[in-house]
Amino acid sequence: MWSEMHEQADVVRRIVTVNGDRAEHFTEMLAADVRYAVIAARGSSDNAARYAKYVLGIRNRLSVGLAAPSLFGPYGAAPSLEGSLVIGMSQSGQSPDVVEVVKEARRQSRPSVGFTNDVNSPLAAAVELVIDLSAGPEQAIAATKSYSAELAAVARCSVGSDGNGVVALEAIPDVIDHVLARVDSIGRAAEDLIDADHCVVLGRGYHHATAFEWALKLQELTYILAQPFSAADFLHGPIAMIERDFPVLIVATRGPLFEPMADLARDLRRRGAHVVALVDDGGFPADRRIEIPAVEEWLAPLVAAPALQAFAHALALGKGLDPDRPRGLQKVTRTR
Amino acid sequence: MWSEMHEQADVVRRIVTVNGDRAEHFTEMLAADVRYAVIAARGSSDNAARYAKYVLGIRNRLSVGLAAPSLFGPYGAAPSLEGSLVIGMSQSGQSPDVVEVVKEARRQSRPSVGFTNDVNSPLAAAVELVIDLSAGPEQAIAATKSYSAELAAVARCSVGSDGNGVVALEAIPDVIDHVLARVDSIGRAAEDLIDADHCVVLGRGYHHATAFEWALKLQELTYILAQPFSAADFLHGPIAMIERDFPVLIVATRGPLFEPMADLARDLRRRGAHVVALVDDGGFPADRRIEIPAVEEWLAPLVAAPALQAFAHALALGKGLDPDRPRGLQKVTRTR
Repeated sequence: MWSEMHEQADVVRRIVTVNGDRAEHFTEMLAADVRYAVIAARGSSDNAARYAKYVLGIRNRLSVGLAAPSLFGPYGAAPSLEGSLVIGMSQSGQSPDVVEVVKEARRQSRPSVGFTNDVNSPLAAAVELVIDLSAGPEQAIAATKSYSAELAAVARCSVGSDGNGVVALEAIPDVIDHVLARVDSIGRAAEDLIDADHCVVLGRGYHHATAFEWALKLQELTYILAQPFSAADFLHGPIAMIERDFPVLIVATRGPLFEPMADLARDLRRRGAHVVALVDDGGFPADRRIEIPAVEEWLAPLVAAPALQAFAHALALGKGLDPDRPRGLQKVTRTR
Repeated sequence: MWSEMHEQADVVRRIVTVNGDRAEHFTEMLAADVRYAVIAARGSSDNAARYAKYVLGIRNRLSVGLAAPSLFGPYGAAPSLEGSLVIGMSQSGQSPDVVEVVKEARRQSRPSVGFTNDVNSPLAAAVELVIDLSAGPEQAIAATKSYSAELAAVARCSVGSDGNGVVALEAIPDVIDHVLARVDSIGRAAEDLIDADHCVVLGRGYHHATAFEWALKLQELTYILAQPFSAADFLHGPIAMIERDFPVLIVATRGPLFEPMADLARDLRRRGAHVVALVDDGGFPADRRIEIPAVEEWLAPLVAAPALQAFAHALALGKGLDPDRPRGLQKVTRTR
């Protein structure tokens, strides 16, 4: 896992280069008769899909929904996909439920795209356009470089032939390396949770994805019951759980949601929560801050990814656990 | 809360009667130029929206996505809604972010529907078609009857003018009363979690909604960190958290996902989890079963709702907490 984490800058560099033509193909698909997109994914790929919902929504004005794969398989009652672009995301390209959704797109003569790290996988075989994650084999059970690759591939597809977007994305790998050079200080922040068996993880907007991925890495590697929430949903009930010293992880970078997130952090600290914040601004109210460099907001999840991974990795080691041997998990999970 | 829980059979009876014409109007909207639906909701209403995703998907073949309200408000970058039907769900009809999404539908000349308990609310004023939850004032902070009303209203809209569907739905209130007559035995099952400070709640398909609502009620009323998962997503990583005596709540009723859920329960028990199951079949593998009457699968979440509420209510009392005074919550939450 450690070694794959450190490949992420190169992986993102490669994505930008490899998929230029395919990204233009992607934006041409959007410009045809596509009214909305449906994405099928599980695990970390589902978190990359959450990122796609915001990137494609805000930058491409595309309405994006996450598929309920059980409609397509177990219930045998696929909805009409008229007007849709159907996207499957899977590192291995193996999960039958994700493949079934894109197969249904073909049956209904709808355009389909697969983001996968294996161009010979069932997912790649089933779609019209393959976006190659080109991340190289991922051995660690906890996905790291394939998650970053999915984020970068989504960003690259959103950009299409827009030169400014490409330039902004090309600047990201160096920033990722900068974050990875500071993993020791991130590891020290993880000490705050060394005795915790639970926490909540809050993010919103582009960082909805970051919060969910941070929680997933903690669940897989540290067995902490880390529960992710959209910060807005958290206010509608779950905030009642907060009591003195309750550990709260928050991710927020500069943009329209930064101040509302800071207000939430202040409220939580008044309620006694212990707030650890992953932020690009030293002024964010928190008991502990993990600072990452500021980049354009839509690309910030790419910079946050290595930081949250380093946090979970360090916490696993701190708890005496082996990040390369999560309990009871296999690399490829096949759900129907 | 206790008293409002016991109004639920009447509330569901009323929904079926009051909204007949509106339900036909709803299905006529679907038959016009609608390709997909977007639902904006928060809290318990968001869980009713999860139910709508399956009911409208399976029975009406409608592709349904959940809106990301922050695109519409804070980011000021609403996606194109061409081809969509836009639905807002809110008991109070007050939350600005939900109202903003349906207002955008009007700006883009798209059909809009509001499910609300207040026909004089901003949500009702903003939509083309109001579905009146007719649940009467809801005083308790933890939503109960308005959640059942939303489920019933979604089911009624799905049915439209289909007589068989109406008959099936009309049979539900008596079953709800049957469940409410057995709350004492449900309360005894809650004793299994009396010392727990965390649990996971698993469901799939129609009961994706039930799992999320069960978790939300536990969070609000008992402050247990109850984390809901789609059973399929749970296998992609979070299952690593399971260790001896880890409390797992599972909801499953007869249908295509019943056997996969039973397999999951067996696997979890092998890993040492303590499984409490809300089921309509005494053969489901569990350490403790809460049995509810069997009904047509698509209506089972309406029967599961009073059971999960009674469970959370009893557990709050057992922990010495007041279910009518959840810590730090107000009845109407206004998020932007």
